[in-house]
Amino acid sequence: MLACLAAGVLVAAAPSARPPPDPALVVGPALTDGFAYARLTELTDTIGARLAGSPAAAAAVDWALRRFKDDGIDAHLEEVKVPRWERRAERAEVVAGAGWRAQALAVTALGSSPGTPRGGLTAEVVEARSLEEVEALGARAQGRIVLFQHDMAGPEEYEAQVALRSRGPAAAARAGAAGALVRSLATASLRTPHTGTTRFWPAERAIPAAALSVEDAALLHRLLARGPVRVRLDLDCGTATPPTADSANVVAEIKGRERPDEVVLVGAHLDSWDLGQGAVDDGAGVAMVMEVMHLLAHAREAPRRTVRAVLFMNEENGLSGGIAYAERHAGEAARHVAAIEADMGAARPLGLLVDAGEGGDALLRRLASPLAALGAAEVKRGEGGSDTEPLRRAGVPTLQLWLDGARYFDLHHSAADTLDKVAPRELAEAAAAYAYVARALADADETLPRPGPPDGPAWWAAPAPAQR
Amino acid sequence: MLACLAAGVLVAAAPSARPPPDPALVVGPALTDGFAYARLTELTDTIGARLAGSPAAAAAVDWALRRFKDDGIDAHLEEVKVPRWERRAERAEVVAGAGWRAQALAVTALGSSPGTPRGGLTAEVVEARSLEEVEALGARAQGRIVLFQHDMAGPEEYEAQVALRSRGPAAAARAGAAGALVRSLATASLRTPHTGTTRFWPAERAIPAAALSVEDAALLHRLLARGPVRVRLDLDCGTATPPTADSANVVAEIKGRERPDEVVLVGAHLDSWDLGQGAVDDGAGVAMVMEVMHLLAHAREAPRRTVRAVLFMNEENGLSGGIAYAERHAGEAARHVAAIEADMGAARPLGLLVDAGEGGDALLRRLASPLAALGAAEVKRGEGGSDTEPLRRAGVPTLQLWLDGARYFDLHHSAADTLDKVAPRELAEAAAAYAYVARALADADETLPRPGPPDGPAWWAAPAPAQR
Repeated sequence: MLACLAAGVLVAAAPSARPPPDPALVVGPALTDGFAYARLTELTDTIGARLAGSPAAAAAVDWALRRFKDDGIDAHLEEVKVPRWERRAERAEVVAGAGWRAQALAVTALGSSPGTPRGGLTAEVVEARSLEEVEALGARAQGRIVLFQHDMAGPEEYEAQVALRSRGPAAAARAGAAGALVRSLATASLRTPHTGTTRFWPAERAIPAAALSVEDAALLHRLLARGPVRVRLDLDCGTATPPTADSANVVAEIKGRERPDEVVLVGAHLDSWDLGQGAVDDGAGVAMVMEVMHLLAHAREAPRRTVRAVLFMNEENGLSGGIAYAERHAGEAARHVAAIEADMGAARPLGLLVDAGEGGDALLRRLASPLAALGAAEVKRGEGGSDTEPLRRAGVPTLQLWLDGARYFDLHHSAADTLDKVAPRELAEAAAAYAYVARALADADETLPRPGPPDGPAWWAAPAPAQR
Repeated sequence: MLACLAAGVLVAAAPSARPPPDPALVVGPALTDGFAYARLTELTDTIGARLAGSPAAAAAVDWALRRFKDDGIDAHLEEVKVPRWERRAERAEVVAGAGWRAQALAVTALGSSPGTPRGGLTAEVVEARSLEEVEALGARAQGRIVLFQHDMAGPEEYEAQVALRSRGPAAAARAGAAGALVRSLATASLRTPHTGTTRFWPAERAIPAAALSVEDAALLHRLLARGPVRVRLDLDCGTATPPTADSANVVAEIKGRERPDEVVLVGAHLDSWDLGQGAVDDGAGVAMVMEVMHLLAHAREAPRRTVRAVLFMNEENGLSGGIAYAERHAGEAARHVAAIEADMGAARPLGLLVDAGEGGDALLRRLASPLAALGAAEVKRGEGGSDTEPLRRAGVPTLQLWLDGARYFDLHHSAADTLDKVAPRELAEAAAAYAYVARALADADETLPRPGPPDGPAWWAAPAPAQR
């Protein structure tokens, strides 16, 4: 792969008439220096999981700031208020029923879920497969635990099912339910529940809500065919006192040598869920951003435009960092020429997803074409990362590093998201692709066309009650 | 597959000159009646995990006896004393160390482990990769937690590594350790620890011992490269009061029409570990045995020899049922012509492993050859099942139903051993192969040659201290 790539690199670099803009020069070091994997190892092993608002997240902020500075890069913190939600203990069981004994269920509370009363909540289970179906349950939801079932089999189905987790519990609460369980949004399971955020708008009634392992969702479905099923759900979790904490986005910058006011943003999110080590989601992205900045900082010449790294705080449980960044830098939005996020794990890079104006994908396809030898030159129209969505609403072209997502949802938001799941070679390849694209966009004569206005309201803004 | 098989069946049955001995007649029903899967579903969903000595195990005994009788088969219980070991709560963490924060570890106590003192045991970790290595640690094991590491990658490595779990903790105790952790004997992991029994002989010091998930074993290994690692292990588990319970093997029998005193034993074990549903280990075997008996009981004609089903109690945590059966039936051992066990999960059948005298494999190869269309006609010399090992020591030829074990150790002894892991078609194929072989052995003119004397002492008998 290396020999191949080096050849590709020379071919790509040769036709340029201008002085050095040679994004290919970052590829070799990214593939060989082990920098990203060393950073990721340090993050996962010395800090581990880092839920926004936790002491570990604060430690991660300090660590990232220090590491950028150690590397000789200007870096600073930008304050972000984050929610403080805590998981303390959780368990559930299916209560003995018509012809069956009690069995333990593998559950994990969803982020922002309130706890159950001490001793747990016991109620009959009723199934639903969509938000519409829970509404249609009417009185059958009253006082029950609504169990959201689905058949997610592959990563491509996540987007279609994620509303069951993010808004299913609120819909169940509106229908009068006492609690909600959601089959984990997972593509593999060894009895592993997958958490994630659920949203209750300020005026909504919040009910205890947990993810159930795929196996246990199947068990409850089978038992429901035998007779009424009751579940005891015992969640000790909830919003802490005080309910928010001061945290920060970590921002590092390499000033452009020709157009310092124009910014290419390279991002990832520093927070993670609390169950694993946050290696794949999104320690890998953090490590790639650090590698990008390291390579650009040590390049013979600074990029023409400014490259700004942003390690966002709290992508997972409310997008606080992405929103705060866009607000604070609103006046600068027009000068952000691109915002790239890496938040798709640590697998083999395939290319880029891009949300830009007409012709943006074609331009990017030209810029990225030398990555073909790495298998990373595909460009597809698609959404940028979550953290850059507020910028995109302000007209910034957004890109996402597109990685092979086949196994991503085996691990996503679960205790199994640990360092061993990251193949050093794949992380290095993804970091190389990221660095190449960042440098190419920072040095290009052209910039990406701006995207049109957003389709609808932002998902993170509470709609008027009538629209819920 | 069905059409193919039916053809194979006719070819196999045709050459026989005797009246009906037609083992092929069981194959079609086994593949199509869904009986085994229905039994397995009932066992996993209405009873679930059934650790020997637990109320669930007692319920499983009642259930199995009732189900045999419902099916019109003579059945009875044979008393077995089993240990009562209980898992109540367990957790562990790596304590904050030289440059790292505390992180939770996924652990599960090993069967027969004592608990830690209340509040947990905190000690420095030292690694060992064999029983010899822990002896060589000398003073470095004193007061420490010995962590047994290994590189098990495939199912074929289980036998080589299982001593780390079964006898590693005792070896660590002998070296003065305060506790033991064993990397799970697993071929896949989503942060899932795999339990199993560990043995301390009566005069040996017992120390708290737990399996650690593969991921956490890797984490501790990496941290040990950074500096001294301390782990807090908090196990609330141990032998209950009273320390034994009365339980039973469930025995069902179809009397032979010509040689009723000669017995073909078809076995599986009814107990399971407590973490999952015991679907693969060994609910599947139980369901197959029930299917075999169902088919033979409803055959046009009884087999020539007696076919006796034994659902053994406590294979997992001491082999109580297998030992008790061999003792109780010692006088009958010479009349056991074969003892077959199904304890290799619920995957596609490949054939049989056989431990018999010279020529036994050849005879069996002839008998099993019509199963070729099912891919289940291979015969290999190998060990029979654990439960039949005491019979084998008494000279009984033992066989094990040989299934595709590629994924078996992904699930073995873990919370992920649940019904959904069993493919109904594969279970039906395995049950068909089992029924065919049982009928063929019960009807054959010849019997398998008896195996020679056993190689060494039985593993379940405490050796003299000097031999330990």
